[in-house]
Amino acid sequence: MHVTSEQRLDDGVLEREFTLGGIPGILWTPERASAPAPLILIGHPPLGLRRMHPRLAGRARYYAAEYGFAAATIELPGSGDRPRWAAAEQARADLRRALEAGEPVRGEIVDALVLPLVARAVPEWRTALDALLALPGIGGPVGYEGGVISIGIRLAVVEPRIVAAGFFAGSLVPAAMFEEARRVTIPLQVLLQWDDEGNDRQAALDLFDAFGSKEKTLHANLGGHTGVPHFELDAGARFFARHLK
Amino acid sequence: MHVTSEQRLDDGVLEREFTLGGIPGILWTPERASAPAPLILIGHPPLGLRRMHPRLAGRARYYAAEYGFAAATIELPGSGDRPRWAAAEQARADLRRALEAGEPVRGEIVDALVLPLVARAVPEWRTALDALLALPGIGGPVGYEGGVISIGIRLAVVEPRIVAAGFFAGSLVPAAMFEEARRVTIPLQVLLQWDDEGNDRQAALDLFDAFGSKEKTLHANLGGHTGVPHFELDAGARFFARHLK
Repeated sequence: MHVTSEQRLDDGVLEREFTLGGIPGILWTPERASAPAPLILIGHPPLGLRRMHPRLAGRARYYAAEYGFAAATIELPGSGDRPRWAAAEQARADLRRALEAGEPVRGEIVDALVLPLVARAVPEWRTALDALLALPGIGGPVGYEGGVISIGIRLAVVEPRIVAAGFFAGSLVPAAMFEEARRVTIPLQVLLQWDDEGNDRQAALDLFDAFGSKEKTLHANLGGHTGVPHFELDAGARFFARHLK
Repeated sequence: MHVTSEQRLDDGVLEREFTLGGIPGILWTPERASAPAPLILIGHPPLGLRRMHPRLAGRARYYAAEYGFAAATIELPGSGDRPRWAAAEQARADLRRALEAGEPVRGEIVDALVLPLVARAVPEWRTALDALLALPGIGGPVGYEGGVISIGIRLAVVEPRIVAAGFFAGSLVPAAMFEEARRVTIPLQVLLQWDDEGNDRQAALDLFDAFGSKEKTLHANLGGHTGVPHFELDAGARFFARHLK
């Protein structure tokens, strides 16, 4: 892990940009911590870290400043400055075309869009986890939160260091991931925007139903995809505080 | 309002039992308060205050001790030591018979069970509100929370002093109350037990959908009717803290 920039922020949080095997990432840590900080991995849609930075930093700095958590994220394959691959570009184009035509998004498009992304991203997040947990001041346990819920589902199934997850049921989910959701057993808190334009409400409820976890909570709020109420930030932090401490 | 007993509890909460026009009630207040305490009315199923006391006191004392709220409840018509009336007894017997036979509960039974209870209870809660807000140390604004969601819906529609409500979507709701739910506009937090034996999940989701409020949040948790997780107590308190302060 190679730190490329470091910034002390006015809320007592240290923000470090890094690269790891050519993948850019960001780490936020509380400057003062008495014990190793639990770590939250912050997922995001494949729109590029630079564009997502304000939203991600807002969440991460709140976790670090208010709850003493470390938080980190990495660039997704095919996003930001990372190389595209032809099949993903094709799937994105197919999705755009379907949405512009007002057509339902066929399962094949969803599979082509999401499954290769999950397959490529998950090993990268696990490698990042190795490197992050090796840093001084960061300890387990680990939580995962955020978008591309399919990446979160796969991580929750395969990565035993992740002990709790906060998902956002706001993206297209391949049918195969519903089966994988049954194998998730860690505590979950799932956000659902009741009037999400790009997401089918019943499918999101079915996905919540499918999770195998004994402790799972759905927080459904009125409003569209980007309208998650501000108070859910603290509700998420408190969920992690229950499980990561 | 006539106080019949008064007890200082070890968490710094004062519990007073009272009667008001022949109706028993209980009031919990924080002993030390710098300003008039916001008030939460705590609803409950028609099982009698004495039987419900441990659960109600658990909630009320947490609100008072941790958040400085006052909390109060009154006996429902036809419950505890209050006089029964024949139609309600008949409706309860019809419900029992349907449940024991494993039959669906017909709309006429739900209507006969709930609508007269709402019609009788709501004016009593409003009268209690008058008396409670006249006490020193208790000020507005007021929240309502708890069971018999139909009573809560009617109160939210007709009582302007109630500015936020936490509902439990765990009881039978007459069809007419779905229409009334559209007229509710105050912020809501609604609890739903995902596997509630006595409550239809889809009906509960439809009711959440029907509420007219711009801010409404559904907290759905795995488990049966009595399995609401302990952490929802604090989530409810924080909802009221946002709206009553």
